[in-house]
Amino acid sequence: MSLLEQEIRSQPEVIARLLERETDHITRIVAQLPAFDYVIIAARGSSDHAATYAQYAWATFGGYPVALATPSLHTMYHKAPRMNNALVVGISQSGQSPDIIAVLEEGKRQGRPTLAITNDGSSPLAAMADHVIELHAGPERSVAATKTYLAQLVVMMLFAAAWNGDRQRLTEVQQLPDIIAAALQGNDEIAQRAERYRYMEECVVIGRGYNYSTSYELALKLKELTYVMATSYSSADFRHGPIATIDSGTPTLLIMPTGATFQDMLELTSELQQRGAELLVISDSAKALAAAKTSLPIKDGVPEWLSPAPAIIPGQLLAMHLTISKGYNPDVPRGLNKITRTL
Amino acid sequence: MSLLEQEIRSQPEVIARLLERETDHITRIVAQLPAFDYVIIAARGSSDHAATYAQYAWATFGGYPVALATPSLHTMYHKAPRMNNALVVGISQSGQSPDIIAVLEEGKRQGRPTLAITNDGSSPLAAMADHVIELHAGPERSVAATKTYLAQLVVMMLFAAAWNGDRQRLTEVQQLPDIIAAALQGNDEIAQRAERYRYMEECVVIGRGYNYSTSYELALKLKELTYVMATSYSSADFRHGPIATIDSGTPTLLIMPTGATFQDMLELTSELQQRGAELLVISDSAKALAAAKTSLPIKDGVPEWLSPAPAIIPGQLLAMHLTISKGYNPDVPRGLNKITRTL
Repeated sequence: MSLLEQEIRSQPEVIARLLERETDHITRIVAQLPAFDYVIIAARGSSDHAATYAQYAWATFGGYPVALATPSLHTMYHKAPRMNNALVVGISQSGQSPDIIAVLEEGKRQGRPTLAITNDGSSPLAAMADHVIELHAGPERSVAATKTYLAQLVVMMLFAAAWNGDRQRLTEVQQLPDIIAAALQGNDEIAQRAERYRYMEECVVIGRGYNYSTSYELALKLKELTYVMATSYSSADFRHGPIATIDSGTPTLLIMPTGATFQDMLELTSELQQRGAELLVISDSAKALAAAKTSLPIKDGVPEWLSPAPAIIPGQLLAMHLTISKGYNPDVPRGLNKITRTL
Repeated sequence: MSLLEQEIRSQPEVIARLLERETDHITRIVAQLPAFDYVIIAARGSSDHAATYAQYAWATFGGYPVALATPSLHTMYHKAPRMNNALVVGISQSGQSPDIIAVLEEGKRQGRPTLAITNDGSSPLAAMADHVIELHAGPERSVAATKTYLAQLVVMMLFAAAWNGDRQRLTEVQQLPDIIAAALQGNDEIAQRAERYRYMEECVVIGRGYNYSTSYELALKLKELTYVMATSYSSADFRHGPIATIDSGTPTLLIMPTGATFQDMLELTSELQQRGAELLVISDSAKALAAAKTSLPIKDGVPEWLSPAPAIIPGQLLAMHLTISKGYNPDVPRGLNKITRTL
């Protein structure tokens, strides 16, 4: 079994451990943080997709606008912005990337509260921060991040729940290990369906709201593992131009769990069917799945704000099986290293 | 001559008019605005790329962090974030998109200062704002935005210069009509080079810092006009995974004017050459252009912060000529309307 497959399968256990060790810790951090108006998050790659999720969940549950940092301001232009009244957050699996560390360091220099979210509590990023949330995911040996992405996402969910203050939200999060385990049961069927896409060279991935993050993360898994040119969009941005790229047969992955964004995604599904796109649908809605050539079901009854956790699972499995169908090695994507240090 | 070509060619004149009518107005607005800590910008499509430019230029020259709004919070989740201490900006060519209007409306409701940047001073977006900056670009009849994107970008440059307070910056901006006219002189050579890419189906577009915005705008022009699956990245994000998609012959457009990000882009150029990518380079550096299969030169001596204005021109021309080479109608992209109303 590949390292990637082992790590994908380990996710219910990884998330159960994270919830056990960090739920109370995060609640305490939220109680201790000084007042702030908005959040600046520095992250790259999969970590940046967890940050994208926070743009929705932290605004909805905490009322905080979230700005994604532009690290080159710090590392290339040497013109750090004023971070007055901001909470500064860095997310990095390894805690090693100099650009992410630079943003947190600047936050500290300006006297702002700082958080590090990392899988390595002894990393330079962790050393810099006022508060460190560890992922407890164990070493990630596959180059493509799966368990650490999901763990980062769940950390963002825990903060959202803690800001919301309603115990019901924290209780909902505790159900994630079971919800994720259920999503993993699709494995064998996805392995079969992946065959169909053996010669796919490009595709489009669309999500909205909470699952905008899922569309980015799924596209990245496809790019780094299968080398397919996958491009992700929100359904709104997609209609502002890129929809023109859709032709008969264009593979289009739609992440559309039921919830506030479902109707908008369903309307897009019809538009895409009129253009003859080949639809692959991740959803808990029978109606949405029925519109798909390839349906990737997730458990129903999951609140929309938690749906990005189960929704990425069929995407990870599809990317993994497609990698095998294409004859590539899932553990060794061409020319990538596990730790990427960028400025 | 297509409407698209007329509008591309009109840009020196459009920008000259904009500078004449809005330079003093923007300086006055900057003097009148109440204090704020950071900026929230709501925009879609090309307008969002002008917002992306502001993330760099407004931080560098004004010290303001810029958050890109997530309009679905307002229109789908009905959970508007608290905008304490923010300046709220909406950018829309038409001033009609309900999601952009919703963000500005919420800013007003919360008593925050608001700006609208639009080509239609009588639009609903303009009616909502404390201050309206018109683009004075004349009606844009081509579906693909060119002159209004450039005008929005120049508005962002004028604000950056005004915040900087150094008259030298405002003087530099006034040179843009000539700089843009010089870039348009590449037209005939680009028309010839476009032939080579007649059967291109996918490509990658990379820029960093100020020109991160250019990479997004160029990819969008390629998508909506030529239907090529163009994907844009910063050089840093690209190294965190998507570089795996690059194989022998993958067309890769690099936007790399000289400046603070040039060395990083030059190193990436070498990595891409080792992977056998086909490079198309927009630059004022002879060294960078020499590495390219297709070189797209821009005038040298332009300060990096202004380079996104000339740098998009070869991109617009390439997209237009490639559209013609592929036998498509540049004025009627399939299934797009000029005004896109999204929620």
